[in-house]
Order: sequence, then C-alpha cells, then structure tokens
Amino acid sequence: MNETIFKKAYGLAQQAFKADEVPVGAVIFKTETGEIIATGRNQTERLKDPLAHAEMVCIKKALKKTGEKRLLGYSLFVTLEPCVMCAGAIAAVRLDTLYFGAYDQKSGAVNQGTQVFTHPQTHHKIKVIGGIHEVECGDLMRTFFKNKRESQK
Amino acid sequence: MNETIFKKAYGLAQQAFKADEVPVGAVIFKTETGEIIATGRNQTERLKDPLAHAEMVCIKKALKKTGEKRLLGYSLFVTLEPCVMCAGAIAAVRLDTLYFGAYDQKSGAVNQGTQVFTHPQTHHKIKVIGGIHEVECGDLMRTFFKNKRESQK
Repeated sequence: MNETIFKKAYGLAQQAFKADEVPVGAVIFKTETGEIIATGRNQTERLKDPLAHAEMVCIKKALKKTGEKRLLGYSLFVTLEPCVMCAGAIAAVRLDTLYFGAYDQKSGAVNQGTQVFTHPQTHHKIKVIGGIHEVECGDLMRTFFKNKRESQK
Repeated sequence: MNETIFKKAYGLAQQAFKADEVPVGAVIFKTETGEIIATGRNQTERLKDPLAHAEMVCIKKALKKTGEKRLLGYSLFVTLEPCVMCAGAIAAVRLDTLYFGAYDQKSGAVNQGTQVFTHPQTHHKIKVIGGIHEVECGDLMRTFFKNKRESQK
C-alpha cells in the first residue's frame, strides 16, 4: 500500500476525532493499483450504533460499490488493529491483505486476543501487515482517551 | 426464554430456507418479560451482503427500535451458534443472555473456534445457553446444504 492510502485513512481518523468519535479510519483499495474504492470512519456515536466501526462502514460501502459478495482483489487499511467483529467481517468478504496501523492490546483480534486469522478455524488466511505508521495512529487514540479521562475528572 | 421465541426464530429460519438463504433466524426480546422487540433472518444472498447474518440484521433493528447504544435488559435467541463476527457484535451491544439452537462446528465462535465470550480478552461475559431445539435447528441446516450439494451434482 502507498502513502496516499495511509493519509486518506489517517485523515478519516482525524475527522472522527474532531466529531468526538473513537479516531479510527479505514480505506479499501484495489490491491494491484492502489485505487481507493471505499472509505469509512468510526460513527458509533453519531449513529448510536456500536457496530458502526470504521471497517464495517467501509466494507458495506465497498460491497455496494462493487455489487459483489466477495472483495477479491481488494485490500483494506485501517488505522487500528481490528476487533473480533471486524476481523470476522474482513474474513467473510475475503479481502486480499489487511494492513493496519496501531496494535490494540485491549480489543485487537488479529495479533492478540482471539487471533482470528491465524486460528485453525479461520476460513480465510488473509495476509496481515500491522504496525504501519504505528506511532501516529496510536498517538491519535492515546490523545483521544486521555482527553476523555480528563474531561470526566 | 419461551417457546414463542423459539417458534418465531425457527419460522424466520424456515423463511430464509424458502428464499434460498442459509436458514438462520434470530429474535431479540426483553429478558424479563420475553417481549419480542426485533427479528432477523439471514439475507446474505438477497442483499448481496455477506455481513447480513440473522444476528446482525436483528441487532441493527433492536438498536433502531430502542434508540440505545447498548441492549442491556435484552437477550437474543438465534437458531445457529454465532460466528466470530456476530459474537463480536453481541458482545459490543451487551446483550444479557445468548441462547442458540444448533452448534456450528465449522463457523461457531462460542462453544468452539475462537470462543469469543470465554476468551480472556472479552469485554462482556455473557450468559450462554446453547443446544436449544438443537435437532430441529440443525436439521434445517443439514437439509439446506444437502440440497445445495445435490443440485450441484
């Protein structure tokens, strides 16, 4: 994946931050060319929908845009390690490669936790590359939650 | 949960079967009274959306109906053991109890596979009761896939 893709997803995470949403952004692109076909950011607060994670929003858009049931030939970059729900969705749509930014010790289900894609039960052995611009993506999360804690004092 | 809830969900699974969808039905109800507030059935084919599992459809409806971000005080019955995506969604909305029908050796993520709710990482220790009308729910699945295999011969 290229820097344009990172910047697009990071910009979406920043938008989420400004909207007081957990700052996560996601982009789906053609694996071969890098052409972006769908984007998404966390919207759980605005939509009052705890399922509206960046990845879910982005995948839904990509499915609509392509008209396909499987996103073969497409890859996803998301600024945070996906949770178990999103990892399940990523496997279900058969994306080629999952790129992600910050590791998520608490809710990540790729490199930690249930490790959905390396679990023997997985139906889809996706290629995973984590830690892309890890510090920037992680700092956005850390600042967001630090602000939240301070505002609750 | 009561028989009315089972029958509703099983009826939805049968509807899915007739529509050539994987036959799974789900119902969300008030834990205390059993009042049904949302229903869903698998619609992955009709919607061309591999994320449109019965549980996801049902949870989305329940969130809209209640206007809440969490489904505290509500429980879910689904005719098949949830997959990893749906288990993640069930945890995210904080349902009280998960009841399910047939165990799913291949894709179930509750009693097998990644065992989302008993994994140390889980944020939500939900009460789980599996195997409700297991044979009926399982037979519907087995007949569906047997027919599929035979039609492909």
